Amino acid sequence: MPDHRSWRRRLYANLHPPAWRRRGLSPLNRFIALAIVLAVGLAILQSEPTLYVGNEWIFRALELVFAVIFLAEYVGRIWIAGENPDFGPTLRGRLRYALSVPALIDLVALASMFATLMGPQGAILRLFRLVRIVALAKIGRYSSALNAIGQAIHSRRYELSMSLVIAGLLLVISSTLLYLVEGEGQPDDFGSIPRAMWWSIATLTTVGYGDAYPITPLGKILAGLTALTGIGLIAMPTGILASAFSDALQRQREAREESIKKREET
Amino acid sequence: MPDHRSWRRRLYANLHPPAWRRRGLSPLNRFIALAIVLAVGLAILQSEPTLYVGNEWIFRALELVFAVIFLAEYVGRIWIAGENPDFGPTLRGRLRYALSVPALIDLVALASMFATLMGPQGAILRLFRLVRIVALAKIGRYSSALNAIGQAIHSRRYELSMSLVIAGLLLVISSTLLYLVEGEGQPDDFGSIPRAMWWSIATLTTVGYGDAYPITPLGKILAGLTALTGIGLIAMPTGILASAFSDALQRQREAREESIKKREET
Amino acid sequence: MPDHRSWRRRLYANLHPPAWRRRGLSPLNRFIALAIVLAVGLAILQSEPTLYVGNEWIFRALELVFAVIFLAEYVGRIWIAGENPDFGPTLRGRLRYALSVPALIDLVALASMFATLMGPQGAILRLFRLVRIVALAKIGRYSSALNAIGQAIHSRRYELSMSLVIAGLLLVISSTLLYLVEGEGQPDDFGSIPRAMWWSIATLTTVGYGDAYPITPLGKILAGLTALTGIGLIAMPTGILASAFSDALQRQREAREESIKKREET
Amino acid sequence: MPDHRSWRRRLYANLHPPAWRRRGLSPLNRFIALAIVLAVGLAILQSEPTLYVGNEWIFRALELVFAVIFLAEYVGRIWIAGENPDFGPTLRGRLRYALSVPALIDLVALASMFATLMGPQGAILRLFRLVRIVALAKIGRYSSALNAIGQAIHSRRYELSMSLVIAGLLLVISSTLLYLVEGEGQPDDFGSIPRAMWWSIATLTTVGYGDAYPITPLGKILAGLTALTGIGLIAMPTGILASAFSDALQRQREAREESIKKREET
Repeated sequence: MPDHRSWRRRLYANLHPPAWRRRGLSPLNRFIALAIVLAVGLAILQSEPTLYVGNEWIFRALELVFAVIFLAEYVGRIWIAGENPDFGPTLRGRLRYALSVPALIDLVALASMFATLMGPQGAILRLFRLVRIVALAKIGRYSSALNAIGQAIHSRRYELSMSLVIAGLLLVISSTLLYLVEGEGQPDDFGSIPRAMWWSIATLTTVGYGDAYPITPLGKILAGLTALTGIGLIAMPTGILASAFSDALQRQREAREESIKKREET
Repeated sequence: MPDHRSWRRRLYANLHPPAWRRRGLSPLNRFIALAIVLAVGLAILQSEPTLYVGNEWIFRALELVFAVIFLAEYVGRIWIAGENPDFGPTLRGRLRYALSVPALIDLVALASMFATLMGPQGAILRLFRLVRIVALAKIGRYSSALNAIGQAIHSRRYELSMSLVIAGLLLVISSTLLYLVEGEGQPDDFGSIPRAMWWSIATLTTVGYGDAYPITPLGKILAGLTALTGIGLIAMPTGILASAFSDALQRQREAREESIKKREET
Repeated sequence: MPDHRSWRRRLYANLHPPAWRRRGLSPLNRFIALAIVLAVGLAILQSEPTLYVGNEWIFRALELVFAVIFLAEYVGRIWIAGENPDFGPTLRGRLRYALSVPALIDLVALASMFATLMGPQGAILRLFRLVRIVALAKIGRYSSALNAIGQAIHSRRYELSMSLVIAGLLLVISSTLLYLVEGEGQPDDFGSIPRAMWWSIATLTTVGYGDAYPITPLGKILAGLTALTGIGLIAMPTGILASAFSDALQRQREAREESIKKREET
Repeated sequence: MPDHRSWRRRLYANLHPPAWRRRGLSPLNRFIALAIVLAVGLAILQSEPTLYVGNEWIFRALELVFAVIFLAEYVGRIWIAGENPDFGPTLRGRLRYALSVPALIDLVALASMFATLMGPQGAILRLFRLVRIVALAKIGRYSSALNAIGQAIHSRRYELSMSLVIAGLLLVISSTLLYLVEGEGQPDDFGSIPRAMWWSIATLTTVGYGDAYPITPLGKILAGLTALTGIGLIAMPTGILASAFSDALQRQREAREESIKKREET
């Protein structure tokens, strides 16, 4: 069947991003990306009772639409796995694709969607909704700009994880000090190191909810020092990332100059 | 009428920034920029009842002064459009100027001003005041330093929008987790994903109003992780922009060195 | 009187920082810097009633000690102005020194100190205490590291002031939007643009006191966007400063390499 | 005893990080590092009454396990000091090791552990727990990535301490202004400069607990300016650190290029 094969090849080019020859995403993949964002948005809005109650049928209808779209996409992906040299046209190749991580994520997202449609409403379904949101991560698959950020983070992974370790140390030290100073007076907020940690993380990250704060003069002085340290905690990873991005840029520029020089020499 | 034309030419040089031969803005444009800032300031203060009530006539008189200034400016700009080679001295050229975006913004700002003077006070006028503030954007037209910042942002638009996408993903994930953990106990603040998002955006941006915060131990641990992630959200765009500004600077310096070398060779 | 002149010359070398030949500050100037910090600290603590009431005599005695030290310093500086080639040994030169800005700051700080000692306690003296704190700025005179930071800020003064203008625009836009959306429901916090500005500045700078926050869904969405914009407001000046510091460093390194090359050639 | 000595040599290679020939830490040291982290975690959890009360025997048993591990480690370190050329195999050498700072930290951490096991529960033991957390700093001894961050901070120590001085100045100025403006109306929060400092540090670091904030229009304007200054306070150290990390990276790259050039020349 040459007709069947040519259709499969066309769908493969449209559905499998690396097989698309033009720049960017194919129209079909753009449509799927949009559908994922909208489906996640729907799941988010559905959790709000004031929106959901009374409009159940709208949500169910839209869910059904998305379920059909993603089921069609899933079946399509299984079908075109035959075109993919990584899997091959045999049944075994398709099974191997169906067991690959992206395909399993698709399946779980689909399953949670049908669970919402058929199963009883309840607390257990909340967890399925969470899985559905994971589907949004698929957009990352489409993006190459994300790689640039990922590489910058990867090239400084030791320094960045060291600033996490320093953050952890500061968290332990400041929580312990505040527990010692404020523990007697405010047992609810500072009566143990884990309790003081809640205050400490809010202060070190400069969030500052204001539900817990020291009231003794010494506690306030220590809290002030903790807040100042928090600025350092922001400055360290920012400085590390800034240098990583600068470095990546300069390497790119030098590589370009190198290639221009070589062309001029020949 | 040579006299009439020479006056028009002089006004054109003073009112149309690119036609001004000396450095910076012409005195007339500086005066207009100042008037815009003051008129916006007046509109802001006017919205405060404790200032406005009892002093209506002062606000009305000042508004009239600004209305006359901006009307004169508008008429002047229509008149000098004849000097502008882009529009030409015909009636059609002037009409084309009057329909250009900056002229329409001027007209809307003017209209809102007269609406306040003549029309009835009411909720609908509030929206006109908002349009009036748009007039402040005109100052951007005068500024070239803004371009430098704009170019730095433009050169990293993909990376910056990717950090927005990452921010969105983190927002969805943290809201969903907190909704699952805190939703039962605090239905008002975490009873749905959109409700938890309000807490999440305040935490990820390290604003931390403190109107909503988790109370269970697991919720607090997840909130602490969210707050730490928030530091990353600040660090990413800052690092990207820092490298963009460094890059722009280095390119400028290299261009200067290049031109010095060339001069030395000749 | 050769003896009198040699004493004056020695005091000049010790009191006038540029006349000190060794590295850093002279021991005398270090002592004066310490005294300024302690005097400012004393003025700060004195404002606290729970510390001051009952211990008035300690504060008065310490103030007297500092007053004597700074009076002696002031008289010394007038005397040694004769050694300074900028002013000269005549009476007119000394008068010119006494009317120079640093000498006048010293005099005002001294006067406020004596005012506290002699005059009646009261609200008006509070303002004098503020002037006294200005004396701390003298430490800046001693420091050269401050210059490096000052130059970095100066070299990017246009970009930094542009980010202030952008901050101002965002402040006006977000306040107006929140006033329109939340003004009806929360007249105390959002009932006018200036009132909404208090919320807006706390959100844009990510401080987030939590005394005012939107309660309507649309208001919360706009507030979330404002908070995200606030991250941009932090990222912009940070990126500008980071590039300024990098640039200054690189120029220093290149200058050093240049000088090494020249030495090698000769 | 060649057998005894060979055992000691093997333990030395496993316990003394610089004596380990392969990359990273020896398995034994990794186990000890893990034990320290777990022991600190146990001490943190133990301070929480809702966890400790009723489970005392679990905490005591785990503490005993850690005490045995760290006692064995301590005895081992004393024993292998004989292998260390810095101390030597004599009794005096071992005593010198026992009096070195790391050994004393180990001993204090151990002592606090036994104090918890044997001594009476009470407020005084809280302080011992704090000392136990210091033991976590030992992990720093194992890490070389920390050095990179330390060097970047060290190379900019003058600029970073200058931004601390500027922060201090801004703290004093903003506290004094708010004390003058808000002191009358809110004596509890702004009735003295030290009290206003608590508000000021929370605002300058953008923490913003929201327990204290100005209520007068002038106070709010000054607070807004303080909050804007706080962004500068975050931007300065971040920019300084970013340039320090960039500089360190570029020097590394240049050193690598230099060594490649030299190899090519030979």
